[in-house]
Amino acid sequence: MGRFVMNARENLVQQALEGLEVSDGDLVRLNRDPDFVTRAEPARDEVAVVSGGGSGHEPLHTGFVGRGMLHAAVPGDVFASPTALQVRAAIEAIDTGRGTVLIIKNYTGDVLNFSIAADLLSNTHTVETVLVDDDLATSSEEEGGPGRRGTAAVVVTEKICGAAAEAGAPVDRVRDLGRKVVSRSATLGMSFRAPTNPLTGLRSFELEEDEVEFGVGIHGERGIETRRPSGEAADLVESLASPLVEALGLGRGAPVLAVVNGLGATHGLELSVAALELRRFLEGKGLRLERTLVGPYVTSLDMKGLSITLTALDDELNELWDAPVHTPALR
Amino acid sequence: MGRFVMNARENLVQQALEGLEVSDGDLVRLNRDPDFVTRAEPARDEVAVVSGGGSGHEPLHTGFVGRGMLHAAVPGDVFASPTALQVRAAIEAIDTGRGTVLIIKNYTGDVLNFSIAADLLSNTHTVETVLVDDDLATSSEEEGGPGRRGTAAVVVTEKICGAAAEAGAPVDRVRDLGRKVVSRSATLGMSFRAPTNPLTGLRSFELEEDEVEFGVGIHGERGIETRRPSGEAADLVESLASPLVEALGLGRGAPVLAVVNGLGATHGLELSVAALELRRFLEGKGLRLERTLVGPYVTSLDMKGLSITLTALDDELNELWDAPVHTPALR
Repeated sequence: MGRFVMNARENLVQQALEGLEVSDGDLVRLNRDPDFVTRAEPARDEVAVVSGGGSGHEPLHTGFVGRGMLHAAVPGDVFASPTALQVRAAIEAIDTGRGTVLIIKNYTGDVLNFSIAADLLSNTHTVETVLVDDDLATSSEEEGGPGRRGTAAVVVTEKICGAAAEAGAPVDRVRDLGRKVVSRSATLGMSFRAPTNPLTGLRSFELEEDEVEFGVGIHGERGIETRRPSGEAADLVESLASPLVEALGLGRGAPVLAVVNGLGATHGLELSVAALELRRFLEGKGLRLERTLVGPYVTSLDMKGLSITLTALDDELNELWDAPVHTPALR
Repeated sequence: MGRFVMNARENLVQQALEGLEVSDGDLVRLNRDPDFVTRAEPARDEVAVVSGGGSGHEPLHTGFVGRGMLHAAVPGDVFASPTALQVRAAIEAIDTGRGTVLIIKNYTGDVLNFSIAADLLSNTHTVETVLVDDDLATSSEEEGGPGRRGTAAVVVTEKICGAAAEAGAPVDRVRDLGRKVVSRSATLGMSFRAPTNPLTGLRSFELEEDEVEFGVGIHGERGIETRRPSGEAADLVESLASPLVEALGLGRGAPVLAVVNGLGATHGLELSVAALELRRFLEGKGLRLERTLVGPYVTSLDMKGLSITLTALDDELNELWDAPVHTPALR
């Protein structure tokens, strides 16, 4: 599995955050006790956009703090939610009085802690929330369940909300745009090798050489099915993209944004081949692949695999997607 | 080891290049037969900067084509040099008459084929070369040997030469600046897990859990020593950085650029911790870490490990490093 570059387990995330200031101190600042990351140059007089969640998914979320995207990111420990007090402190630090939009991936701990933070501030701050629940693999007919997981569509949500805030949109509008992205997005992922958790040294599951875990999330959980597909990239991509097209009800001519996301240890050559195959597949369906984001943006430690996110575009989303952005991971 | 996302082995690189056009078609164009990548919007009236080499190191070099960096990149197959005819065609396509600087990593095949290309063009084009040979692990007293390998200092060289060309420097000046970067740079790498070659399915060497291969290159070759260091990031970083400081003769107060480079499957958390430890180490030596580049920039397929490159800065290099750049991998 190989060594993980860190010192003591207890301070891995803390030290990585300090390291982010070393690499990107021109863009971001680390606040300690409680820990959160803000822009180096605070925005003035615009709605604040805040996200966060467990670490181990870098560059998500800290790598997306900067002009045109997040105003703050609140990291928890590896695969663990940040506390409500961290989230509250981050909002207090960056809300300029125009209100805050909290972008929350749909996990029990995140939903709980971000909601408590919003409640704690309800008398003094306007805090609106956007819940990201894009992972098709966790769709269920069951009522009252936890709902779908939040995965790579969160990057699109953060970009669109950040651009809207930068353009001066009011807090309700930024929230509604975020919810619009979520309602028009879906994601599926697959893994060829599970991640190794640096805190335990354990790989979260084992696969045979010819096996692929289909429908994985980003926390080392098994997917919905273990498959033995052909080795062809074309087949792998189609198995992810086809259910997305169906779930989103994308008809011929529909303009689409695709995120071809490396889950940790997937090489650039692989993601490029996947992007090519995705374009072929979508064009074969009569869809227009108008925007792409290809790279490791929402990782699951050193998992080998990829996810594909599709978002149904329109002119409004196109324009916000194209707006300038300047963060450590997306420029 | 896990599956590698591709179709037939024979067209892996070709398809990945087509995929680069899918993800970054606003910045780069693929020429086929012979294969090379140029900027989508050709530069006018400036010296051309060209590099290339075997594939499997992405984003190197194709990811560095764009304003302020390369004018063209010429990719070979995985870990194999491009042909002289590819290199010649790329130069012919983008040289505007101001001349071309060819940046060559020091490997026998690359040196041979890039030199032949320059020779073939000697009657019609001004082609100057910069040989990058930064890998300290391959230092040798032996005369007439192949010399040191070229590794991650090539990114710094490409950035500085590209910025100088963009600023209108003549061809000799761009070449001299590239050679200056090389003379002031050194790199060392280590691996925790060897890469698996997608063309053969074989891992290039095996390590025990507690072993680290010290002094590795970027082609799956073993390093100069197999070690069992402590698990501490601080020790790992010092073992790489200390010989670099010594080799470059960096004295107290010297300003330094550092590239903390992930070799393929190394996580962002790890690289951030390494960046933090590197700053601590350099500051302990009285050095000033003035610029950093942290991320997977020169990979060796899915190798787990990292390299550190140090470049001794001065005002001239600082200014060129800070100049705007707009490429798929560096902006």
